[in-house]
Amino acid sequence: MRVLVLGGDGFCGWPTSLYLSDRGHDITIIDNLSRRKIDVELEVDSLTPIRPISERIAVWRQVSGRDVGFISLDLATEYDRLVAVLEDIRPEAIVHFAEQRAAPYSMRSTHTKRYTVDNNVRATHNLLTALVQTGLDVSLVHLGTMGVYGYGWSGSAPIPEGYLTVKVPTPDGELEREILHPANPGSVYHMTKTLDQLMFAFYAKNDGLRITDLHQGIVWGTQTDQTSRDERLINRFDYDGDYGTVLNRFLMQAAIGHPLTVHGTGGQTRAFIHIRDTARCVEIAVTNPPEDDKVRVLNQMTETHRLLDLAKMVADAMGAEIAYLPNPRVEAEENELIVRNDQFLALGLNPTTLSEGLLEEGRDVAARYRHRADPTKIIARSVWRAGMETADDLMTEVPDQP
Amino acid sequence: MRVLVLGGDGFCGWPTSLYLSDRGHDITIIDNLSRRKIDVELEVDSLTPIRPISERIAVWRQVSGRDVGFISLDLATEYDRLVAVLEDIRPEAIVHFAEQRAAPYSMRSTHTKRYTVDNNVRATHNLLTALVQTGLDVSLVHLGTMGVYGYGWSGSAPIPEGYLTVKVPTPDGELEREILHPANPGSVYHMTKTLDQLMFAFYAKNDGLRITDLHQGIVWGTQTDQTSRDERLINRFDYDGDYGTVLNRFLMQAAIGHPLTVHGTGGQTRAFIHIRDTARCVEIAVTNPPEDDKVRVLNQMTETHRLLDLAKMVADAMGAEIAYLPNPRVEAEENELIVRNDQFLALGLNPTTLSEGLLEEGRDVAARYRHRADPTKIIARSVWRAGMETADDLMTEVPDQP
Repeated sequence: MRVLVLGGDGFCGWPTSLYLSDRGHDITIIDNLSRRKIDVELEVDSLTPIRPISERIAVWRQVSGRDVGFISLDLATEYDRLVAVLEDIRPEAIVHFAEQRAAPYSMRSTHTKRYTVDNNVRATHNLLTALVQTGLDVSLVHLGTMGVYGYGWSGSAPIPEGYLTVKVPTPDGELEREILHPANPGSVYHMTKTLDQLMFAFYAKNDGLRITDLHQGIVWGTQTDQTSRDERLINRFDYDGDYGTVLNRFLMQAAIGHPLTVHGTGGQTRAFIHIRDTARCVEIAVTNPPEDDKVRVLNQMTETHRLLDLAKMVADAMGAEIAYLPNPRVEAEENELIVRNDQFLALGLNPTTLSEGLLEEGRDVAARYRHRADPTKIIARSVWRAGMETADDLMTEVPDQP
Repeated sequence: MRVLVLGGDGFCGWPTSLYLSDRGHDITIIDNLSRRKIDVELEVDSLTPIRPISERIAVWRQVSGRDVGFISLDLATEYDRLVAVLEDIRPEAIVHFAEQRAAPYSMRSTHTKRYTVDNNVRATHNLLTALVQTGLDVSLVHLGTMGVYGYGWSGSAPIPEGYLTVKVPTPDGELEREILHPANPGSVYHMTKTLDQLMFAFYAKNDGLRITDLHQGIVWGTQTDQTSRDERLINRFDYDGDYGTVLNRFLMQAAIGHPLTVHGTGGQTRAFIHIRDTARCVEIAVTNPPEDDKVRVLNQMTETHRLLDLAKMVADAMGAEIAYLPNPRVEAEENELIVRNDQFLALGLNPTTLSEGLLEEGRDVAARYRHRADPTKIIARSVWRAGMETADDLMTEVPDQP
């Protein structure tokens, strides 16, 4: 299929683009390189030495013989160019990763709150209006988040895939209605994904757009079968307090001898998925578009874990300490979490679950590039409310031996 | 109270500003005059001869002895100035009317869809972040719409005020949960108000902002006790296919001898409120802020009517014809509508309902300014989907006698 990957230079976008290319799809990446520019702003770098996008694409051509296109374009501000690109390429599917995706960054300052909303809402809405304007017969696959559901709202009831059937009281009794699962976002970033949902619902209903919304868990892992073919194809590895995701941060911290940073009690339970399964799920979604104008919601996760259990597992396996730090977020200290992911399983996903082998791969990546780490970027300093306490640096230089 | 009225030059904002001023509040209007500029874009004018905002304010000072401030400021794009104004004025309450408010205009073109989302989302979000940044102890009152609920979703069950208590299935039985009423917007404009709701919920929860969201019905009427004190204080009267509201359009059409334009069967039932009650409700909301961080939702409407019944009433009273035109909207042909408005009634609202006398006032306003009408602007031409049918002009010149 001809597939446009919006945000195809990012942590999920890049390995997904290569996976789709490897599977025979004709890929064009659109990206404004905003993620790399935020690295500059935060004075931090991917732990892994990622190469410029044009070099990445040239190397992929060398190792695979396959061409991937690249267009530098800002979805939020270059609407007319977006329309021209759509009319030129006439994609059969579009994968939309092109949003600011870090909850801590979205809460970092007034500027980042406003940037996250302006960028994410406009990127999504421009895309939707451009699809209506061009009238292309295209299936849109969007990366959402498990965070739209919030945590703890439904107690021990499993979280369904997007929709919930409820009973509504009426004067005469009750009505049964299927509703979009109530939104309970935990950050400005997560909030933008709940806004996306309502825009998708409207444009599906009014204009018949065919949309799949992937409610993804926390991604861990670094490499896929494609990114590991050449060091110059390596994927991002974020370890800083804003963009690093929890399990990858634990692995990196263990690799440099930094205590594992648990916020609050560690009783938060979250959903996870390995980066390899992200790529696989996206291909499944792209090749199985919804048949009608109801937005299809798939929970893109494979397992749930309590954060403290993950920390203990990594600590035991790699001999690290655990540091209990103040929680910079406004969130429940503990929650249960059971998630339905029946649709991806039925569509053929064979989940990659947490295993010693994959953890070792993460530790090896972290150990290999430990000289690139700035340990003063590890502590999470973006707070959800002004005045909330954060920790001091636990380490200022990476020791020769952890 | 010191009250900022955002969008205080508009159809609801102007009479509300004068009403609040008359009631002794200290009012500053913020407006970017976008509504007047859209008149220029659409080549149409208010049927009533509205004066420039500085003249309006000078006349109000003459007739009332009261000062109303005015600041020309674009909420969506002038964030730093907004913060400076908030810190300078230190309002106790803010009334937020500052959004593009016409459903047909929001569906008119790709440009107006994008403008409506960009303007409305950024105006609201900038305001919320500015309130967090400044830490002001202020109550925010926002003009929302009944349209967030959609029509027909709950059959004959009454529409509650913002929240709905539902039963959620669990493996062991059922949970009872209060949820924000599911969103079912009928246009891009209405969609932006459903996005506003989620932003309000997040900022109330995360930052403790005190917010009241007014889900308003369709406004009719023109004058209030304040705007009628001097012709130069007169309120807007929109009759065109994009900005005119249904009952005012019928009155104007009858006054110039134009057939009453009913879209589809006229079986659509909608909620209504007179402009005088808009102003009263806003004062009630301003002086009764919510006490906690749950967004307070009030249904700001006083009665419901089937559109065809309204057309027949106006036709009978004024001797007009009814023209059944193609419906340019994607909506149910017919719906029931029962709405709870218990909270405003309990807070002392004495509803102004539809009566012969008030209809005559509307007809008189329309008749007085009929020479200002351009009948080629009456037919609704903004369609919800490309290719939908619209009517030709039914009249091209206003006859001397209707």
